[in-house]
Order: sequence, then structure tokens, then C-alpha cells
Amino acid sequence: MPLKNSDTTHIIEEKDEYEAKRYAEYLYEAKDDIVKKYNLHEIEERLTEALNYNLVHGELMGLKMLLPAYKELVKQKDLKEHQLKSVHILGWCVELMIRTFMINDDIMDKSSMRYGRSCWYTMENVGMSAVNDCIIFENLCYHLLAKHFRNTEYYVDMMEMFHEVMLITSCGQCMDMVAGQRPIASFTKTAYRNLTHVKTAHCALYMPFASAMYLAGIKNPLAFRQIKSICLEMGYFSQAQNDVFDCFVNEKETGNIGTDIEENKLSWLAVECMLRATDDQKRIMEECYGKKDPEKVQQVIKLYNDLQLLEVYRDFEVERLKNIETQLQQATHEVPRKAVLEVLNRIRKRDIVKYV
Amino acid sequence: MPLKNSDTTHIIEEKDEYEAKRYAEYLYEAKDDIVKKYNLHEIEERLTEALNYNLVHGELMGLKMLLPAYKELVKQKDLKEHQLKSVHILGWCVELMIRTFMINDDIMDKSSMRYGRSCWYTMENVGMSAVNDCIIFENLCYHLLAKHFRNTEYYVDMMEMFHEVMLITSCGQCMDMVAGQRPIASFTKTAYRNLTHVKTAHCALYMPFASAMYLAGIKNPLAFRQIKSICLEMGYFSQAQNDVFDCFVNEKETGNIGTDIEENKLSWLAVECMLRATDDQKRIMEECYGKKDPEKVQQVIKLYNDLQLLEVYRDFEVERLKNIETQLQQATHEVPRKAVLEVLNRIRKRDIVKYV
Repeated sequence: MPLKNSDTTHIIEEKDEYEAKRYAEYLYEAKDDIVKKYNLHEIEERLTEALNYNLVHGELMGLKMLLPAYKELVKQKDLKEHQLKSVHILGWCVELMIRTFMINDDIMDKSSMRYGRSCWYTMENVGMSAVNDCIIFENLCYHLLAKHFRNTEYYVDMMEMFHEVMLITSCGQCMDMVAGQRPIASFTKTAYRNLTHVKTAHCALYMPFASAMYLAGIKNPLAFRQIKSICLEMGYFSQAQNDVFDCFVNEKETGNIGTDIEENKLSWLAVECMLRATDDQKRIMEECYGKKDPEKVQQVIKLYNDLQLLEVYRDFEVERLKNIETQLQQATHEVPRKAVLEVLNRIRKRDIVKYV
Repeated sequence: MPLKNSDTTHIIEEKDEYEAKRYAEYLYEAKDDIVKKYNLHEIEERLTEALNYNLVHGELMGLKMLLPAYKELVKQKDLKEHQLKSVHILGWCVELMIRTFMINDDIMDKSSMRYGRSCWYTMENVGMSAVNDCIIFENLCYHLLAKHFRNTEYYVDMMEMFHEVMLITSCGQCMDMVAGQRPIASFTKTAYRNLTHVKTAHCALYMPFASAMYLAGIKNPLAFRQIKSICLEMGYFSQAQNDVFDCFVNEKETGNIGTDIEENKLSWLAVECMLRATDDQKRIMEECYGKKDPEKVQQVIKLYNDLQLLEVYRDFEVERLKNIETQLQQATHEVPRKAVLEVLNRIRKRDIVKYV
């Protein structure tokens, strides 16, 4: 669902990475609060383990966008202690929500690995109780929000933003599943673009940037509309890139084994292929797409190559980047433009030329 | 997790039951909102099916407490249209949260039936995507709250109550699982009582009653503390009764096949048994409890009979009821006392004498 690990790593410096772990005390404190208040001592160890495995030793992708965006908006390279505390707590909130989807995603996809580690639900003594851990994570986020931001002007707006992103993203997950059960002839560009908006962009991009803006005291609704529009475009672009990687880039480079063809996914490649295919080529797609047969998968890949979809993708990339850059230039100063550009550059640098 | 079907059926009249279905339009409207706003037409059918199966054709247990409680607090037998609308919308909110736990619970327990119908996750084309439907339900609740109650004085307090109940109950589900992995010698009365508070009472009892109180404009924190304390006692009592039913009452009467002994559950019977057992009897429990062997299960049941635990339960029931009635008598008029008594009577009437 959200952006892959490689999209954002190294955006924040090593020092910040260390800081993030240091600020994990606020996450543990939230756990301590509820353990104490509701006599949950028997599950304290289990809660700590779930937080350690999924959050503290995780990738902190949300924080890696939130922190530079906030620094840019408050125009301070070095934050004061109380600002650092707030931004990290909010970073954990974003992380808790992102993890909720990842854990559920892995269960739905029957995945075994996530970022080179075993999926949480596959761990001993976890199993399907992972679905309950997701509800704990989601609501621990609201505990943190209430504890640290209840008296701020943006408390309700920020909470509603979290609710909305959770609703949209879960609907996006549902869309992804339903789309994958449809015949390939029904795949359209509009449906694809919309899927990237609801499945990826809100949770992985809009949520961290909007959080930084609320925290920095931005109130202008125009700024929130602009950052959302930019994030939707970035989500579209990065998801299309992921789809191309899924098919053409070696597992070693991505850490994931591509299965979009076998799983009949509404992918950028499948959509563009159907747009360009002759009637005969369409028949090949209808026969071979969504089948677990390796020979049929190879036939689809051959078709993608025949139609030179990697060339098409390069043009798409140039066009998308231009669109995003134009939007950024026209955006108000209340949009964290440098931080967005940094994320955009990270995505760009996963240049497929390196791999194919 | 929450109270069983039989606890609350018939509390509201048939007319109200009909009304509830009629007011389902607000639930469908919430679905329409997001389908339209985020172009989710492809999943509209799936969303409708999930709502129909789990909510509209469900048991409406939350509403059956909320409605009489609200009527009592506003001192009106017949509500005006805008009041009916509000109470039903809030009823759907409560229902959405209760269902979230039931669906996840069934997945974790690998159950096949819930209230005589197939569990949602076992349905064709649903499977593990049911975990994602839970996130949709949970956040559709917040969409409804924001849409209809955003301008009320109690909006934030009510939202925080929902967050807290979701957090406590998911921790309760985790407690239940962890307790079931512990040796029987470690089972204590305090741990049992606390488990019923976090696993059952908040979600199944406190959430609907507190919702009614917010809606009726109650602000007195004392009233909320009192209703919570009463609900915790009722949760303790009704969970203990469920545990006795699980072992001694025929499947036909409860609609569930009891498996507490096999699953090493921290049950009222196991706790009371260990409190009364001789060293020899404790050894039987240690040998036989938590084993899937039918002969061992029978040995445990024989032990429960030898120790006359049904007699112990009858005394427990009298004592609990007295405690709840005392609390009710001492409570402020801002606590919906008659509605609470009605629910209590429903639980009482599931008299075990009828069955054993």
C-alpha cells in the first residue's frame, strides 16, 4: 500500500534516525499509560514486543517526511526540545497508522516478508491476533494525539484528517482487491489513477505532510488543497513506477518478488498495454494475464517488451514530474516545497535505467 | 467479545426494530458520500454487501440499549423526528464498532458461525479482506459522527470515548489471548474480573449507554463515572454467566459450541474451581484443562460438578445483582436507571435453572 522502503531512506540524516529511536520513549509512555490505567500488566510484554517489532525497529517512513517538512515550515534547521518532542510524537502517530495497513496488507496478501524481515502475523505466538494489534495501534495513535495535542487549535482538524485518511485508504485496499477480480478488458487509465490516489497517496504522502503543516500552525485551507493535489500526483507517479519495478526490476533490487501479472493486478503496465494492443495482442492478454502459469507470465512480459512499454513509461515519468513541479511552483509558501521535492527526488532516483 | 445475542433481544419493541432498519438510510448515505467523493463506484456493491450482512441484518444490540436509555433521559416516550434520526445514527456508530470486534474475533478464533449465520470472513469473495472491512467500519463511524454531530458540544468528548473504548477492548482481546496461554495455576479472581472489564464491559455496555447520555446532553462527569462502574459490574456478571453457559448449557440454547475448557480460557468456572480444589483436584485440572481430548474435558466438567460450582454461581449471581442494584439506587438521575435495569433483567432471565 504505502511507498516502499527505498523511496524515503536517507532523506533524514543518521542523527535524526538516532533521535527518532530516542523519542520512542513517548510511544512506550503511551503503552505504560494504558497498562497502568486498565491493569493490563499481563499483556505489557506483548504490547512492547508489538511496538518494538513493528514501530521502533521499523522504517519510520512517515517521520522521514514529517520532520524535514516541519523544519522547513517553521524555518528552523535545529529545533528546540519541545518542537522535537511534538514532531516525533506526531511521527509515531503517522507510523502507527501506516503500520496498521501494512500488517493487514500482509495478512490479506499472505505475504511472508516485509522489508527483508518476517511479516508480523507469521511470528510465533502472533498469527491472526495481528488483526487485533492493528486496532490497538490505530487507537494508540488517538491516545497520543489526545495526550499531547488536546489543547492545540488544530486537535480536531488533525484527528479528522487521520479518520479520513484511514477511511480512504481502507477503501483503496478494497478497490485494489475488487479491481484484481475484474477482466483485463475493463481496466482503464482513470480507474488506475484513482486507485493510486486512494490506495497510496493519502496514507503514505498526504498524511505525513498534512501532519507537519498542522503542527506548524498552518490554517489556510488552500495550502491543504494544494499539498493534497501534489501528493495525489506523486502517488500516481510512484505507484506506476512500483508497477514497472514489479515486472522489470530484479527482486534483489526491490526486496519484493513481483506477482502483479499472476494476481491480475490493475497495474500501470496492464492498462498501457491494453491501450496499445492490437486485437490479437489483446487476446494474448486475456488468455495469459492473471494466471499462475510461468509461461503465460513470460508471454505477457514479451508483449510489454514488444509494445516498448518501458519507453512509454519514460515519457510518462517526464510528464508526471513536470506536472508535479509546476504544481509546486504555483503553491503557496505554506506548502513545504523543499521537503516535497526531496521525496520526489528520492523516487526519481530509483531510475529504472539502472536496472533494465 | 460483547454480550451474546440473547442478552438483549426484545428489549426494544418490534416497532423500534422496524424503525432501525428504516433509519439504515443514514448508513447507506454515509457510504454514498465516500463513494461519490473518492470515486469508489467499483466497490460500492461490495460496501453495500458488507453493511447489509454485518450491520443492517445484524442484531442491533447497541441500539437496543441506546434507544431506551435516551428515551428515559429526555423523558419522552415518543421521540420527535430529529431526535429519532440522531439516536439511530448514533446507534449505527455503536453497531459499526461492535461489529469490528466481532469480525476480528471470529477470524482470531477461526469460528464458522455467529448468531446462527456464517461468519463474514468465511463468505465467498470475502476471506481475509474482512480485516480491511473492519477498518472501513471503524472509520465510517467517525464519518457519521463528523457529519451529524460536528457542531454539537459533545462531539469531541464522544469521539474520544469511542477511541478509548476501541483501545481498551482491543487490549482486552489481547488479554484474553495471553491469559489463555498461561498455566491454570496462575489464574486469579482479580485477573478474571479485570478481563471482563476490558474485554466485554466497555464495548458492549458502556459505549451504548454513554452514547445515549452524551446525546441527551448530560455533562456531569460523576454520571459518566457511575454508569461506567455499573457497566463494569454488569460486564463481570454477564461474562461469568456466559462462561457457565459455555460449559453447562446446551448448544441449542446458546447457539454456540462451548470450547472454553479445550482452549484453556481464563473462565469464571476455572478460577472458582482452582480456589476450591484440593491438591489432588488441582492436579486433575493441571492435567486436563486446555487439552482437546474429550475425556479430559469430561474430567474437568466432573470436577466442576463435584465442587458444586453451579451452586457457587447462584450465590455469585445474587451477590452481583445486589451490588449492581445498590449502585443503581445511589446513582444520579442523569444515569438511565430504568434502561440499565431492563438490560440487567434480560441477562438475569437467561436463568441457568432452566437449562441444568
